[in-house]
Amino acid sequence: MTSERSFTEGLGRFFAGSGPRPVVGIGDDGAIVRNFGGETVVVCDPVVEGVHFASDAPPRLIGEKAVGRNLSDLAAMGAVPDHLLASVLLPRGFSAARRAALFAGIRGAAAAAGCAVVGGDVAVTPGPLTVTVTALGHLPGRALLRSGARPGDTLHATGRLGGASLGRHLRVRARVAEGVWLANQPAVRAAIDISDGLLLDLWTLLRASGGLGARLLEAAVPIHADARVLSRRSGRTPLDHALGDGEDHELLFAVRAGDRLAAGGPLRASARRPFGVVLARPRLELEDRFGRRRPVSPRGYQHDLDGSGRRA
Amino acid sequence: MTSERSFTEGLGRFFAGSGPRPVVGIGDDGAIVRNFGGETVVVCDPVVEGVHFASDAPPRLIGEKAVGRNLSDLAAMGAVPDHLLASVLLPRGFSAARRAALFAGIRGAAAAAGCAVVGGDVAVTPGPLTVTVTALGHLPGRALLRSGARPGDTLHATGRLGGASLGRHLRVRARVAEGVWLANQPAVRAAIDISDGLLLDLWTLLRASGGLGARLLEAAVPIHADARVLSRRSGRTPLDHALGDGEDHELLFAVRAGDRLAAGGPLRASARRPFGVVLARPRLELEDRFGRRRPVSPRGYQHDLDGSGRRA
Repeated sequence: MTSERSFTEGLGRFFAGSGPRPVVGIGDDGAIVRNFGGETVVVCDPVVEGVHFASDAPPRLIGEKAVGRNLSDLAAMGAVPDHLLASVLLPRGFSAARRAALFAGIRGAAAAAGCAVVGGDVAVTPGPLTVTVTALGHLPGRALLRSGARPGDTLHATGRLGGASLGRHLRVRARVAEGVWLANQPAVRAAIDISDGLLLDLWTLLRASGGLGARLLEAAVPIHADARVLSRRSGRTPLDHALGDGEDHELLFAVRAGDRLAAGGPLRASARRPFGVVLARPRLELEDRFGRRRPVSPRGYQHDLDGSGRRA
Repeated sequence: MTSERSFTEGLGRFFAGSGPRPVVGIGDDGAIVRNFGGETVVVCDPVVEGVHFASDAPPRLIGEKAVGRNLSDLAAMGAVPDHLLASVLLPRGFSAARRAALFAGIRGAAAAAGCAVVGGDVAVTPGPLTVTVTALGHLPGRALLRSGARPGDTLHATGRLGGASLGRHLRVRARVAEGVWLANQPAVRAAIDISDGLLLDLWTLLRASGGLGARLLEAAVPIHADARVLSRRSGRTPLDHALGDGEDHELLFAVRAGDRLAAGGPLRASARRPFGVVLARPRLELEDRFGRRRPVSPRGYQHDLDGSGRRA
């Protein structure tokens, strides 16, 4: 949640110092723990009715999203998903048919990713429907962290952004192959999953990289067709939606200036084109097609999950 | 949740077959996954306001319970906790002071177990307060499973049972040392965490062991002083409370007939005294001090968290 972001950022310091030190702890898309010489990447995020999906969302898609959201976090680390656990809190009166559809969604999304469901628990509560998935993965290569960006790096995304609230947010297609491929590219220095919105997640990556900034070229930001559709309804520009809507679950990544990504691989052509550059000073700015620059706040953009296009 | 038990038991079959096969999957206290030649034990259970704690429970204790409940599941596997992640869903209006106390509880309980908090996430939702902890551990020796009991085995518990709703349920003292020690005893064949109630969890262990039964000696069941206190209020016997209250978070374990536990170690003397025996036929029975036997249903006993002593 946006409003909880600064608090979550403080959790790393709060929880530091007890027990075996993780390789990577709080503050990245996932944690990396070491055991027996190997490394396991662990992520755990919930989806909650009324927050991450509407009450009338199809249960199968809710299950798929609960899995996809976590697989996307693994992808952002360069990890391959292996196992997952699902903790499901059903509101009273949730029918057996809807429950079956929910679990079919979990199973389907896991199976599609070659991931085994190794733990599951169901409890009935006063509500709301909540599905918390824990996913474990391994790193075929190095880990892709949020903290590696440097001034001059170019900024890229694995797909187009904005307007996910029109329905796409329930159909997360985690960029697992892309994440592994990016982790294998020496030119790629940092990555993050775009869930809270491009500007907010970019800001998180820049903070993790030591308090940097970025300039985005408005004409180059990859805008999803859904953002244009939503724009007609919301009165906001498609760019606004691309910068702030969130729930895109594409990977945002930084590439060392002057360096190149290898040919081939799973990236779309658009992901090879930069839409921004990392700056040394901690500020965000937009540059229009006339070269005019204006500062922008990452906090000016909030989740928009009800499809109304209203800013929160 | 009791009413969801049979459904949860079916999850293992439902989720079978996708992705890398776990060493141990759904149906035990935790899952065991293998990576790089090592094994990781993973558990993930929520605590929910109105289900696992009352609305007026102190936030620090809620945090402690969320951790303790999962550490107890690790203990029941013979695992040592290493890392945990906490996903916290706060109801709107939950104050910063209460939030701080909740996180202090999580941190304190983790640190007391030598366990590092490596992931944390906070979201604000319509409620209820929900804390889902994922805990990862390693096995110093073999894994202690639910499935190893055999007819003739004697039954034991690491502590006294019943009446946890008087407050003890919020102060889970996970039996980690006991679990590791028991896993190291060749005489110990199976174990489970007592969370739903002695009879229900015993029944789960017996089912996992191939559909066995058990006879319990009423006079030998380890009854907690809280069960006697609660008995005065509820009109039920202390034995009833010990058999069915749940939330004890002691370990129930089966010892091979005629075999012995080693001297020393962390067990209390009472844990060495058997209170029952495993039967070949799938039934539960109680034997009173006159040798009279009566059948008993595991389903006759339900959670009692409101301290009223009422049966659900």
